[in-house]
Amino acid sequence: MPHLKRDFNVNTISELTVARLSIYLRCVEELQRLGIETISSQALAKRYHLNSAQIRKDLAYFGEFGVRGMGYNVSELRQYLIEILGLSRERRIVIVGAGNLGIALCHYSRFTGESFLVVGILDSNASKIGESTPAGLLVESVSRLPEIVHQREAEIGVITTPGESAQGVCNLMVEAGLKAILNFAPVQIKAPDGVLLRSVDLRVHLEELSFFLTHGIPDSG
Amino acid sequence: MPHLKRDFNVNTISELTVARLSIYLRCVEELQRLGIETISSQALAKRYHLNSAQIRKDLAYFGEFGVRGMGYNVSELRQYLIEILGLSRERRIVIVGAGNLGIALCHYSRFTGESFLVVGILDSNASKIGESTPAGLLVESVSRLPEIVHQREAEIGVITTPGESAQGVCNLMVEAGLKAILNFAPVQIKAPDGVLLRSVDLRVHLEELSFFLTHGIPDSG
Repeated sequence: MPHLKRDFNVNTISELTVARLSIYLRCVEELQRLGIETISSQALAKRYHLNSAQIRKDLAYFGEFGVRGMGYNVSELRQYLIEILGLSRERRIVIVGAGNLGIALCHYSRFTGESFLVVGILDSNASKIGESTPAGLLVESVSRLPEIVHQREAEIGVITTPGESAQGVCNLMVEAGLKAILNFAPVQIKAPDGVLLRSVDLRVHLEELSFFLTHGIPDSG
Repeated sequence: MPHLKRDFNVNTISELTVARLSIYLRCVEELQRLGIETISSQALAKRYHLNSAQIRKDLAYFGEFGVRGMGYNVSELRQYLIEILGLSRERRIVIVGAGNLGIALCHYSRFTGESFLVVGILDSNASKIGESTPAGLLVESVSRLPEIVHQREAEIGVITTPGESAQGVCNLMVEAGLKAILNFAPVQIKAPDGVLLRSVDLRVHLEELSFFLTHGIPDSG
């Protein structure tokens, strides 16, 4: 099995690098479903429109991996990426904001996959509390956030409130001990040092479509 | 104003390159809000944890831009990115699948921004048709897709159906003449040549959080 280096500096690793690792994982998951056992960085790059030098560089950064001239073993590459991304154990999520987006994310397998589990969906609106979601969770009061984070061992907070509530909810999440927060509210918010805050911007996807509508659809579709 | 090259080959441009252009646009929008008028690629890279050589390369690819040693004019850079991304005119969207995610995307400004407008939300479920959404649209029948695409000049289709309906909806969108499709359903689907199909995988964001929860939160948060 590949050897994972433990002494790299997280401050040198960009969001885009980690996003590429996720993309590589998606690719090798598909290769595995297709029964493909080994693949070279060139073939991987060609198949998924990636950059083969970048693939080798990204993977080499985290340890020794790949045998020159032999290509990658798909199953080992998958394990390696799962380990790098910290997906070998379940990560638990609390969502605050039980509007359409929060409820959609609760039972949206493309969001959670196998490694993530939504353990609570909270709201401040009394009329929503106690409602059941299609995923089978009951909406709970945001006042119970610290207790829920602690008891259900949540590590990730997801904010799906309106913009004006997002910073307050973020502060509550930080106080409750969450170290990783994903914000879907359409505002810029801040978290203190030691807490990782990311905002999701779905417009990136629409802008990609706009780019290709403007300049022509690539052959690969 | 910068000069945009028109003769580049779209087949040489990856999804990741275009995603970076969107990220650069988000950055310069923020710089503009902050009243910053010029910025070097180094300062831009440092502020937003990007790669300055990559920024210069990405921007240079699309034409002549930037004056050596002077940094970029923020307002011009914004215009340049808007032009490259094809955002100088409105793009109209039809969503098929009036579940929580579809309805959330209808009125989610982080999804649509200023350059995109949702002009229809359609479903095949008779009990949903005629319902009004918080965004003020009425849910319409998916059988009206061709007519709605044509009359409202929609260019982009968004699929938010359950997985098992996604391929069928994609086929209908292609028949209706849509050339760009964004799939949120948690399945792999296909579109013919000449149609750009992208699937959104929100797990990438959770996996980034998992990565940093595993290896340590970077200083920048």
